[in-house]
Amino acid sequence: MFFASDNSGPAAPQVMDALAQANDGYAMGYGADALSRDVVARLRALFEAPDAAVYLVPTGTAGNVLALSCLCPPYATIFCSPVAHIHEDECNGPEFYTGGAKLTLVGDSDRMTPDNLRRAIAAEETRGVHGPKRGPVSITQVTERGNVYTLAELRALSDVAREFGLPVHLDGARFANACAKLGCSPADMTWKAGVDVAVFGGTKNGCLGVEAVLFFDARQAEGFEHRRKRGAHLFSKHRYLAAQMDAYLRDDLWLDLAQRANARCDALVQGLRGAGIEIENDTHANMVFFRAPRALHRAAMAQGAVYHIWGAEDGPQDEIVTGRLVCDWSQSAEAVTQFVETLRAAR
Amino acid sequence: MFFASDNSGPAAPQVMDALAQANDGYAMGYGADALSRDVVARLRALFEAPDAAVYLVPTGTAGNVLALSCLCPPYATIFCSPVAHIHEDECNGPEFYTGGAKLTLVGDSDRMTPDNLRRAIAAEETRGVHGPKRGPVSITQVTERGNVYTLAELRALSDVAREFGLPVHLDGARFANACAKLGCSPADMTWKAGVDVAVFGGTKNGCLGVEAVLFFDARQAEGFEHRRKRGAHLFSKHRYLAAQMDAYLRDDLWLDLAQRANARCDALVQGLRGAGIEIENDTHANMVFFRAPRALHRAAMAQGAVYHIWGAEDGPQDEIVTGRLVCDWSQSAEAVTQFVETLRAAR
Amino acid sequence: MFFASDNSGPAAPQVMDALAQANDGYAMGYGADALSRDVVARLRALFEAPDAAVYLVPTGTAGNVLALSCLCPPYATIFCSPVAHIHEDECNGPEFYTGGAKLTLVGDSDRMTPDNLRRAIAAEETRGVHGPKRGPVSITQVTERGNVYTLAELRALSDVAREFGLPVHLDGARFANACAKLGCSPADMTWKAGVDVAVFGGTKNGCLGVEAVLFFDARQAEGFEHRRKRGAHLFSKHRYLAAQMDAYLRDDLWLDLAQRANARCDALVQGLRGAGIEIENDTHANMVFFRAPRALHRAAMAQGAVYHIWGAEDGPQDEIVTGRLVCDWSQSAEAVTQFVETLRAAR
Amino acid sequence: MFFASDNSGPAAPQVMDALAQANDGYAMGYGADALSRDVVARLRALFEAPDAAVYLVPTGTAGNVLALSCLCPPYATIFCSPVAHIHEDECNGPEFYTGGAKLTLVGDSDRMTPDNLRRAIAAEETRGVHGPKRGPVSITQVTERGNVYTLAELRALSDVAREFGLPVHLDGARFANACAKLGCSPADMTWKAGVDVAVFGGTKNGCLGVEAVLFFDARQAEGFEHRRKRGAHLFSKHRYLAAQMDAYLRDDLWLDLAQRANARCDALVQGLRGAGIEIENDTHANMVFFRAPRALHRAAMAQGAVYHIWGAEDGPQDEIVTGRLVCDWSQSAEAVTQFVETLRAAR
Repeated sequence: MFFASDNSGPAAPQVMDALAQANDGYAMGYGADALSRDVVARLRALFEAPDAAVYLVPTGTAGNVLALSCLCPPYATIFCSPVAHIHEDECNGPEFYTGGAKLTLVGDSDRMTPDNLRRAIAAEETRGVHGPKRGPVSITQVTERGNVYTLAELRALSDVAREFGLPVHLDGARFANACAKLGCSPADMTWKAGVDVAVFGGTKNGCLGVEAVLFFDARQAEGFEHRRKRGAHLFSKHRYLAAQMDAYLRDDLWLDLAQRANARCDALVQGLRGAGIEIENDTHANMVFFRAPRALHRAAMAQGAVYHIWGAEDGPQDEIVTGRLVCDWSQSAEAVTQFVETLRAAR
Repeated sequence: MFFASDNSGPAAPQVMDALAQANDGYAMGYGADALSRDVVARLRALFEAPDAAVYLVPTGTAGNVLALSCLCPPYATIFCSPVAHIHEDECNGPEFYTGGAKLTLVGDSDRMTPDNLRRAIAAEETRGVHGPKRGPVSITQVTERGNVYTLAELRALSDVAREFGLPVHLDGARFANACAKLGCSPADMTWKAGVDVAVFGGTKNGCLGVEAVLFFDARQAEGFEHRRKRGAHLFSKHRYLAAQMDAYLRDDLWLDLAQRANARCDALVQGLRGAGIEIENDTHANMVFFRAPRALHRAAMAQGAVYHIWGAEDGPQDEIVTGRLVCDWSQSAEAVTQFVETLRAAR
Repeated sequence: MFFASDNSGPAAPQVMDALAQANDGYAMGYGADALSRDVVARLRALFEAPDAAVYLVPTGTAGNVLALSCLCPPYATIFCSPVAHIHEDECNGPEFYTGGAKLTLVGDSDRMTPDNLRRAIAAEETRGVHGPKRGPVSITQVTERGNVYTLAELRALSDVAREFGLPVHLDGARFANACAKLGCSPADMTWKAGVDVAVFGGTKNGCLGVEAVLFFDARQAEGFEHRRKRGAHLFSKHRYLAAQMDAYLRDDLWLDLAQRANARCDALVQGLRGAGIEIENDTHANMVFFRAPRALHRAAMAQGAVYHIWGAEDGPQDEIVTGRLVCDWSQSAEAVTQFVETLRAAR
Repeated sequence: MFFASDNSGPAAPQVMDALAQANDGYAMGYGADALSRDVVARLRALFEAPDAAVYLVPTGTAGNVLALSCLCPPYATIFCSPVAHIHEDECNGPEFYTGGAKLTLVGDSDRMTPDNLRRAIAAEETRGVHGPKRGPVSITQVTERGNVYTLAELRALSDVAREFGLPVHLDGARFANACAKLGCSPADMTWKAGVDVAVFGGTKNGCLGVEAVLFFDARQAEGFEHRRKRGAHLFSKHRYLAAQMDAYLRDDLWLDLAQRANARCDALVQGLRGAGIEIENDTHANMVFFRAPRALHRAAMAQGAVYHIWGAEDGPQDEIVTGRLVCDWSQSAEAVTQFVETLRAAR
């Protein structure tokens, strides 16, 4: 019953095998090897974007902050949700990589709406040079509260960005889970929906540590390679990044793994609902946020369930507290069943 | 009827005279002249802080961002009001000078309260290294909406900072106006109230462009001089900064000018209230924010009144819009009377 | 006998008068006043550059670092002399404002040559993304060792920059002295010689603290105004910057003051040569570097001469040490004569 | 005959096995797993430094720039060789991570000497705040030209740093090769020789991508974890970094692999010398720099040898050009023999 995070499970065997296979003989460093070049071509094909500029980086945060640093001058501001990973969980990484840009928080939930996005953008640059310039809009898909924007919602947000001439960044740490949920293609969820730059995450979905950054207009990628290098994210033994991504793309492994994770999450949601437990996120891919008294969380954890709660560990027993359950590809049906039963029993 | 800003009026004649007197013969550059040294000593005396580290800079923003850069590592966050000058009107200056720190906005008004400050501080560092470290608390006195914190309110905020071991910065662009309002000493409003670093503004109160930065614990000023230099704020002809501050301190000119500005503002407030006009700020020093239909603002401006309104110039006539009136030392009683009469007539 | 620096003397009376005249009534802040707009127009006229983007800043370092930050991405390198002010005397200001660019030192003297500049540029970007990209070429005129590039020399350097597609920055802290020396127009020494961005210094030549930054192709100035603001260099009471520059431009005061300074320096050079003293700089505008035993420097200083020597104050008496003498507009013929006589007498 | 770099060969089988073994079940992220904690303990033991602060990062550049950012304020300068990796091959990474520090190049070769280091340090801070403060001394061991400092040489350099109160950083991308060469312990080559912070490289010596950063005085590591996170170098699936390092430490694999690499390089050096070919580096660990006419390099490459030459590929046939040969653990004796024979035959 380990639901702490999708970075907690093992890498997929196909990814491990690919690493082992890549570990043969000599290869030029820094991405000049054949496998690295091939992976770029395959990512372009997957995204139906033959002219995209494509790069691999080892962490999702690296993908986000490097992408944003290409889109946002240091005297501008990035528009995002107040619970965006780039705001809450990258320890000022965007501020660092952009050279001091600001983040303007849009609305008060995990999903921005066209209205509150428009309002937030309109409010900036009314003060001339006294405030920051308007910079990119950053969308997190799946959101940090487990929700999935529909394609129409994505388009509506990017349309607002377009009104103001602003580029759109997609934080896709859980890109595959969202794609699997929506049943759409990577192109549908990115450039066809108005996204300029996407981070296509592998780490949380069966890889050890690899993400692809795709600029659909390669001109926006100017400086990316130098920025990656000075950020210390250019791997010398680049083939090991490429090998992971290669396996991830082969036979749509990325999609298969995400579907498995989502299926477990579906089962969790059904189970929790069946047990009468309130669920916070109205849509979901591989994460569910549920509300329960602290006593119930404690009982579940005492039975071996591992997950995070939102709030202090030592509050009153009857206080309602949110718990987060995350499924990755490796999650078993048994663990899901056991968890739901545990909660039922403990109520 | 010019109420646009306290940076719009002329410099005080005593300040101009001091510039002319300082413009005699040779003086070593970069603050090594006698007048510059003397001014430091006099600032220490005024603040009853014989061990303070004291520096002159040409702009209030320079004072704020340099002070904050000494208090805040790049991976931390600064706590301030959402309408703080450092957030709204310094175009990412704090982010730039700190090397990428974040600003955490406290509450939803110009005055922070101990409760919402404590809540904001408590909420940071709950995510470990994923979010920023807690950094300094920055208080603006007079606030950007014209209010003045009482000494008790300042102490209550700095007490909260102290609970968490955080330093306190005071943005004192209108320090003198606040001091005049409170009838307290500069020491009362700074180190005696728990402030670690204060910017003592001269620019808005009769100088051409000079501010003093005072670190009451000189150890916190480590690196300030190098930071000022690399920020390009170390004046070579430093005597012209010093001469302004010298005149400003002599015979309590700073206080006299502020009292004059505040007295005009008092008259404005009384006049507006007498005319039945709603005033937003419940306390005031030299700024008043009043609410009136756009038609009334237009009528006043058509009669020659100059001031800023909060909102678009071209909205509906009957929409209630906030106007800001700022008095500096040079404001005349006649202008105040004329303005009130203009509003009365136009209603 | 005060030759320590051209930042040591008083401001010109015309500049002081202009300040006093500008100190009248109300003016919009931040450069929105009539005088500020007028000064921009006059600078464009002086430089025969009707489309130039023109800005005022309070210090020469601010002018340099802001200009360079528009020309140089953080992952590039600036080419300059090893004794350039931007390298030796701005405490990492260029590194700070560019967000971490490097300075590549060209040759081993104060004047770059086309050959060593070409060699330095050619050597960069041979390492791909491992090293920085090639960035702007920065030329100091007058150099920090008192020499003046001829127009042909400037053109030869900018031609090399052009070969590689790199922009050219001119640090003109002593622009007027160089112009007076060469007998050329400001346009001759800048855009006609291939300079893209020039800092036109006023501070060292009779102003209190003002410099103009001119981008001859306004597109290169993108972001300058936001960068100036976040650097805390946008003066609220901008009219006092403008008033200085206005007086400086009126009746070619800038040129007149520089000619006076240069004439004193000429007299110094003649006097020193007549006294058999070795002079280091082969050309000069308003600075002379001369070599003499430490004993002679000490004797002169004991007689009241004030200037800097290059090296420790307490070395052996007979060690040959370089002294720097700088003349500003206020230097008197008597002081020059007296200094030469003092040296003669002390030999 | 693949001698292009020690990042070109495969990872050691023990490292691959460890990855596979670590890929089992659930583990908390971000270094909170048991293996990560264990590796820290083992690194402390290896370095005989029970109180050291120890961190894992994925690249050598990350190790260097993060370490330096803890030691060097943005207004200081780092002392290093002009061919140091941090200067030539990290694309302004140190400037970026420190927030704008400078690098002062010491001497004109790959090895600093106490004399030229002392001279370089002494020359800084003579200009007060106009130039940068003195910052850390950074030593590269093995140097970028293949030489190995003796322990006495390291101590002599760190003694100079100590004279000025400056910390010492060791770039140990090839730490193991140097240790193997000197036959000393890791403690001997670091804190016992006056090193404050060392990067212990794994990537070039049989790992996929992992380096350890060790602060022997943990107080100097203040902020490291936040800096690593905001730099986007904190791996969520940290166990895969730990697993590599774990295998690397087990049974002194790090030393065994380095000895193998060095042995091949010894054979190369002997072979080349026997063939009368001039070798540039007077000591060596796993790299040899040799001088030969371009024609000879071309002939070798035509026979299948892969390595880098210093200089253009298309110059005159008889020009003497330096070639660099690097051995890693996987280098075969046959390849070495074949290469030497190829060169002999081609002369």
